[in-house]
Formats: sequence, C-alpha cells, structure tokens
Amino acid sequence: MTLRQLFDPSAIAVIGASATEGKIGYEAMANAAIFDGPVYPVNPSTTGELFGAEFVSSVTEIDDDVDLALCCVPGPAMPDVLEECGEAGIGAAVIYASGFAEAGGKGEELQDALVEIADEHGISLLGPNTSGFLVPGIDLRCSFASGVEEVPEGNVAVVAQSGGVGLVLAFQSRRQGRGVSAQVGLGNRANVGFAEAIEYFDSDERTDAIVLHVEGTDDGRRMLEACRESDTPVIAYKVGQSDVGEFAESHTGALTGDHELYTAGFAQYGVPTVDATDDLMDAAAALGNSPTPDGPNVGVVTAQAGPGIIITDRIQRAGGRLPELTADTQERVDEILPGITYADNPVDTGRPMPEFGEIVTAVAEDERVDIVLVYELFEEAIGFPVAELDGLAARVDKPVLFATEGIEEDLADQRDQLADAGVPFFETPERAADAAGALARYARLHADNGVADGGTTRVDVADSEVTADE
Amino acid sequence: MTLRQLFDPSAIAVIGASATEGKIGYEAMANAAIFDGPVYPVNPSTTGELFGAEFVSSVTEIDDDVDLALCCVPGPAMPDVLEECGEAGIGAAVIYASGFAEAGGKGEELQDALVEIADEHGISLLGPNTSGFLVPGIDLRCSFASGVEEVPEGNVAVVAQSGGVGLVLAFQSRRQGRGVSAQVGLGNRANVGFAEAIEYFDSDERTDAIVLHVEGTDDGRRMLEACRESDTPVIAYKVGQSDVGEFAESHTGALTGDHELYTAGFAQYGVPTVDATDDLMDAAAALGNSPTPDGPNVGVVTAQAGPGIIITDRIQRAGGRLPELTADTQERVDEILPGITYADNPVDTGRPMPEFGEIVTAVAEDERVDIVLVYELFEEAIGFPVAELDGLAARVDKPVLFATEGIEEDLADQRDQLADAGVPFFETPERAADAAGALARYARLHADNGVADGGTTRVDVADSEVTADE
Repeated sequence: MTLRQLFDPSAIAVIGASATEGKIGYEAMANAAIFDGPVYPVNPSTTGELFGAEFVSSVTEIDDDVDLALCCVPGPAMPDVLEECGEAGIGAAVIYASGFAEAGGKGEELQDALVEIADEHGISLLGPNTSGFLVPGIDLRCSFASGVEEVPEGNVAVVAQSGGVGLVLAFQSRRQGRGVSAQVGLGNRANVGFAEAIEYFDSDERTDAIVLHVEGTDDGRRMLEACRESDTPVIAYKVGQSDVGEFAESHTGALTGDHELYTAGFAQYGVPTVDATDDLMDAAAALGNSPTPDGPNVGVVTAQAGPGIIITDRIQRAGGRLPELTADTQERVDEILPGITYADNPVDTGRPMPEFGEIVTAVAEDERVDIVLVYELFEEAIGFPVAELDGLAARVDKPVLFATEGIEEDLADQRDQLADAGVPFFETPERAADAAGALARYARLHADNGVADGGTTRVDVADSEVTADE
Repeated sequence: MTLRQLFDPSAIAVIGASATEGKIGYEAMANAAIFDGPVYPVNPSTTGELFGAEFVSSVTEIDDDVDLALCCVPGPAMPDVLEECGEAGIGAAVIYASGFAEAGGKGEELQDALVEIADEHGISLLGPNTSGFLVPGIDLRCSFASGVEEVPEGNVAVVAQSGGVGLVLAFQSRRQGRGVSAQVGLGNRANVGFAEAIEYFDSDERTDAIVLHVEGTDDGRRMLEACRESDTPVIAYKVGQSDVGEFAESHTGALTGDHELYTAGFAQYGVPTVDATDDLMDAAAALGNSPTPDGPNVGVVTAQAGPGIIITDRIQRAGGRLPELTADTQERVDEILPGITYADNPVDTGRPMPEFGEIVTAVAEDERVDIVLVYELFEEAIGFPVAELDGLAARVDKPVLFATEGIEEDLADQRDQLADAGVPFFETPERAADAAGALARYARLHADNGVADGGTTRVDVADSEVTADE
C-alpha cells in the first residue's frame, strides 16, 4: 500500500458536503477547498455551488481522476459510500465518523466490513474516528477542525493516534513558530496505522523528523520495525503511564497498554521517548534541524548562572552528560574573556557581551562536545550572536540549540534571524535541556544498540505486545 | 526587619548612575526612572541631568527622605557607599555587583563587612550578586535588565535565589498573560533571604501566591517556618536534583544541597514542589486565583478524548485522583447530552457543543469533586463557555481550571474574557494537569499534615539542613 493518493492527491471528493455552516460536511469542505487542485462536493440531495465548486450526486459521476475521498457521512452509510469510491477508482478515504471499533459490538463489525471493502478495492482508510490530516506544503487541509488553515509548513511529520492530540501538536507547532510537514490523526487505524504512516513520511522529502503520539496499538511489532527502518529520526510520546483503563479503550479502541514495555520497545528500536506534547515537538525541532549527534556529551554556554544550573541538572537527568572541556578550550575561553565567571562546562559568562558568540564557537569546536546548548537572556544592546551561530552546526557537524527569555516583541527579529539560520530555538531552560537530552538519548540508542545497522534486539517487546480487545 | 523601605520606598537613589548607555548605572537608572516618585542619580564625578533628574554627588546631600539605594558600583566601593547610606538614613539597598560570598575568600570577607555595616544602620540588603527586583503595581523597576519595564502586574510574588531565574519567571509570566505582584532575585542573601521575603509578601495585599526558586540555603529552618506561617499559598521549585556541585556554589555561594531533603521539608511545611519554571508559574496561577481545594479529587471535562487521556494520566501521576462521579451527576450529564461519548470521570463530550458549559457546571457541583479541570479545543462556531465559567469557582467554592489549544488570534478575545472572569488558563494538556496536580498536593499537604494548624512534624529536615561553606 502506498499512501501517495492519501497525502498527495490529484483531486479530492468531499462526500456528504453540506452548505450548512457548523456541520462537518461544511467545515471539511471549507478547509479542503483551500487545496490547489479540483475539490468536488458530493451530495445526492443538494445542488448548486459550494466554495466555487458544483455539487455532484455521486463520486461515480465525477469526470476526473479523484484520488481521495473525505467522508462526512454517518457510520452506517459508510459501506455504500466506500463501494462507490471503489467503483470510481478512488485510492484513499478519510472517515471522520465515530461509532466503529472504539464503540465495540456492532461498531466493530461495521469497521471490519469497511476494511473488507477497502481491501477489495485497494483503498487506504484513514480513521474512522479521526479529525483527519494536513499537508500545509501543498495546502492540503483534510480536517473539519477550526483553525487548521493557519498551521504553517514545517519539516516535522506529526503522526498521532488521537485526532485531537494531532491538532494539539499542530497548533503548538504554530505557536512555537515551527509548523509541520504533515499532521495525521490515525484514529481507529482501520488499515492505515503507525507503520504505514512512518514508512510514507520517511520517504517524504518535506519531512526531517517524525513524531508519534501513541496510546496503544495491537500492531506494535510493525510499528517498531518501521521505526527501525526509518532513516528519518522518530521520537515517540507514549501516553498512559498510570492506569487510564476503560476511558482510553472507549477512545480509539485500544487499551493504553504497558507503558514500560512500550518505552523499552521504542528504545530498543532506536526511538527516544518523551513525556509531554511540548517535549515531543521540541525534540523533533532539535533532531529535525541538526546534524546527528555522535554522542551524549553536551557543552553548555550560558550568560546567566541560574538558568545554567537548571539546564545542567536537567540534561544530566535526561540522559546527557556535561564533559569537562579540553584544556585547550578552557584556555581559549579564558583568552576571549579573561576572568570569566566559570570557564568549565557549563561556561558561564555572567552576562551577555559582544564576545559571547566567540565563546560559543570555542565550546562547539571542543572535541569532547557532541551537542551544544546556548542560553542567553535577551539584552537589547547586545542581541543574539546570530552571525556566529549561522552555519556553526553544519561546520562543526554537531547540533547547536539556543534558548532565551525576554520580551517577545523585542527579540522577535533576532529570533527570526536564528530561525532563518536553522538554529533550533526553545522557550524555557527546561525545554531546551530536555531537547538536548532527547538528542543525547538518540545518540546513545543509535550507538549502543547498533540500531542503525539493524543490530541485535535484547528483549523482544514486540512479541509480548499488549493487544486491544479486537 | 521590615522590607517596607525596599519594596515600597518613598524615594530612590541610584548610586553610580551613569550617562553611558549599556553600563549598569545607566540601565538601572533608566528602569528606576519609571517610578512615580523622586529618583536621584548619584555620582560624584558627573553633573547635569539623567532621565530628567539632576545628578547629586552623594546620598548624604539629598534633601529628601530616600528609603532605597540601588548600588551600581563595584564590590570594593560598597563599604563606603553603604556607610553613606547609613548616614543618610536609607533603610534598604540593592547591591548588583558580584565578587562576594559566591567568589569565596576575600569576597566572603567583603560581604561580611557589608552585613556588619548594614546591621549597624538597620539597612536591608538585597543581594549582592542580583539583578534586583520589580513591583509592577507601583512602577518600581529596580533592575538593570532589558525589558523589565514590560513585565505586567499580576498577583504572584516571585522570590528567586538567582536573579537570572527571577527574570526568566517574570518574562514567562508576561508571555502567559499573567504578570507578577513582585519579582525578587535574592542573589547572595546578605541579610534579606527567603524567610524575610516570604513574610513580607504574605502580608502584601497585591500578592495571592508566592513562588520560590531555591538552589540551596544555609537557613532552611527559617525559610520553612516562614512558609508554614504564611497564609498566602507558597509553591517551591528546588533545582539541582542531579549533582551540579561546584558550578552551583560558584553562583550564589550555596551548594544545591540534598534535593530529597528539601522536597520532604517543603512537603512537611505545607509547600508543594514542582520541577520546572513553567510548572511553578502554572501552579501559582492555579493556587493564587482559586478557592483552596478541600481535597485531591479532580473532575475532568473534555471535549476531545485524546487530550483527556493525557490529562487523566498526568493528574494521577501528580498526586490527584479522578473519583467516580455520583449517580446523580452521571444522570444529569446524560440528560444534558443523551448518548454522550463518556459520562463518567473524565466526562468526554466528543466535540465542543453549546451544552458544554452545562456539563462543566454539573461536574463542578458534584460533591465528590474538589477541583475541576476543563479541556476544549477551540472551535470558532462554539467558542468557550465563558458565561457558565464566570463565577462558577466562587459559587461551588472549588478551583476551576481551563485549558485549550487553537490559533492564538482566533481565541484571544475569549481567552481575555476568561481571564477577566478569573479563570486560570493553561496552554497544554500536560501543564493544565500538572497545575491541577499541584492543587491536589496542596490540599493533601494541608489536610494530612495539619500544616495549617501548625501540626506535628515527622522528620525535622530543618535540623539536618545542608549548609554552604560559609
């Protein structure tokens, strides 16, 4: 199965499109209409135009190669709708309705019936029970949710089990000034699951990192193997550390499963895990915009000691370490700033100053350092060392992360300059340190486990996967 | 010692004021000049005006009752400066310079000498080695840092051991739309430490919650006792869970100390602890703007299951619990929304809808619920249930927290309306859940330990306090 027709369609049909504002068939059509290709509203009981396109009564009557159907009809209508899609040669469908496997009983049977029809016609099914997906780079907004038209393009593919959490992550990416290459809510994963999505985005040239939001899946082995096969870094957020039980099952038809088992499994297959939505997007920003780190050794440069202590503590707890700098680097730092507050790792300059960028360069060039993290409260008179940071990561072939705090309007320009220079940017000392920690864990997992070479597995978590009741 | 002259001065002298931009004596004067009372630039080698005020050569020559001196001179000049302050009847001084106790040896002797002079004249010393403090409500900006003039007034007093972290917290409070009643960087705590600051802000009518950033202190017992005596809720962020050692000591002259000992001590004295700057400000927003919760039982209402699972998991891990709702409440919920996605706790409505506010009210009125947490992705057509949330917390006498995600510009108006209604607002599901968890822990600490009644202590951590080398 290729997901080309789902994520890169030539034309789209919105089945159950409606002229009534507030209805899913209206909201989905409004967002789909942004697409720069043909979008057909389909509804047998409506005529006229919607967002400039003429209503048609059935997908079988469209004189065009439609790849993708957005299905805004109730669950019980889906089998007939999907049959028609098959007849029309449509290769992908998004099913927004709920009341399928997550509801148990008849809902489960209905979902099984859909999968059968889809398999017969070779249709990729996203959902059911999803808010859909976005590919901002081609203006593809296949979601009924408010505001999705404002999610900007970035280089991280968000693959969320829950459509709602997928939206949370997409909106966060906008607030953080980053954006997404794609955002997908898998929902019930009728026949498009984690493995298929990971494989697709690994080969997607707009995507430099893949993040997973996982509640629980009965197909853990394939998900983990897809992670291992992926050349694009994958980071996972497995929710449900405490017992969420029945409520989780009612959601996307899967128990949240054994948290430790998943975490160990991800580690074994080369995937660092995190514990919050913002940490997930931060880790992706670090991994997706940096050279791959060779090891877990972080060199920290800070202009203020207090945040430096927080960062040092946090990196160590997150799996990174702060090596002593070489004598050469310490001498160099001392030459640049005689009487510097603290010349070892972290290097603390006490205040921002014009030499700050030179200090960062010296630490970045230290052979003991694999990852560089810079913290500097914004001072208007000094600004950020944009010139020194621009291109530094590529030159030393190491991630260089930057975090600051200040009045947003004052630092916006310089922040944009750092973004243009490809420097990952973080809002709090803890989040920057956690991102450096994720880089360190990624480096450890790919060095120790030999994951990159398909190395040996030690505990085969995939075989003891927790399964849902289906 | 009262800190009235420090935090509520009639007139201010800026000693070492300078007309040279970028110098601390210029930046501190620029910020101090915002104050709506007399501000005197003091410098024996400069004449003319600075920010509309005439230079004077010494504080002893000011014909006015100056309460507060901001000292922008190097450390070795401080003893003479402080003597003159004493002669002039100045009751409080901020010392920005570093090179005192945190530097060891002669620096320590210099600090001891200053404390002696201060004690003799009854001067409260903030610092040395601090960026100063802010009281936005009276336009008092006694800091040399960029951007402090933009920190808005709020109801949380930030007491940070590190001046830099104090600024981080103040800037965060602005980004979160909250502000501070005061922000203080204690630095070396020459004679104004945690205990003095807590006592002052407990009696400050602008302050409804106090947050502490703690690296380590040799006066743990007094700090903890001040916490216990405080009627205003106190929340603490103790940094240094892993070994930060020598670097921390070089900062404010204190080792970061035993993290577990501090955490246990705080708990025993009624103070919940958190583990990040944003969590600290979130917990304060929850505690400072809510009725005190009677217990740790959280009722969760969500419009989307995925964030609901995250929140449920996280609350349980943070010390809260989700009780089953009463049969009455479940029936009521079912009547409001027949066929609702999930009617127990969390209540999941599946999508936002006009009845959402009614559901929240039903859960808030459940006798088993002590704390209410609402999560709703923003939908333009529905908006937030502002009318139902306005006044709800006061009526049911329980905290009611709200979290959302969406396009900031779209939801800004409604967010402002919630803020006006006093509803604490959070940016991510995890941060909202962690704030509810902090409320739950606060309730537990004040119920179980009898802290509010000065109850019994079980392990006297204060006696085994880690001390710095002084």
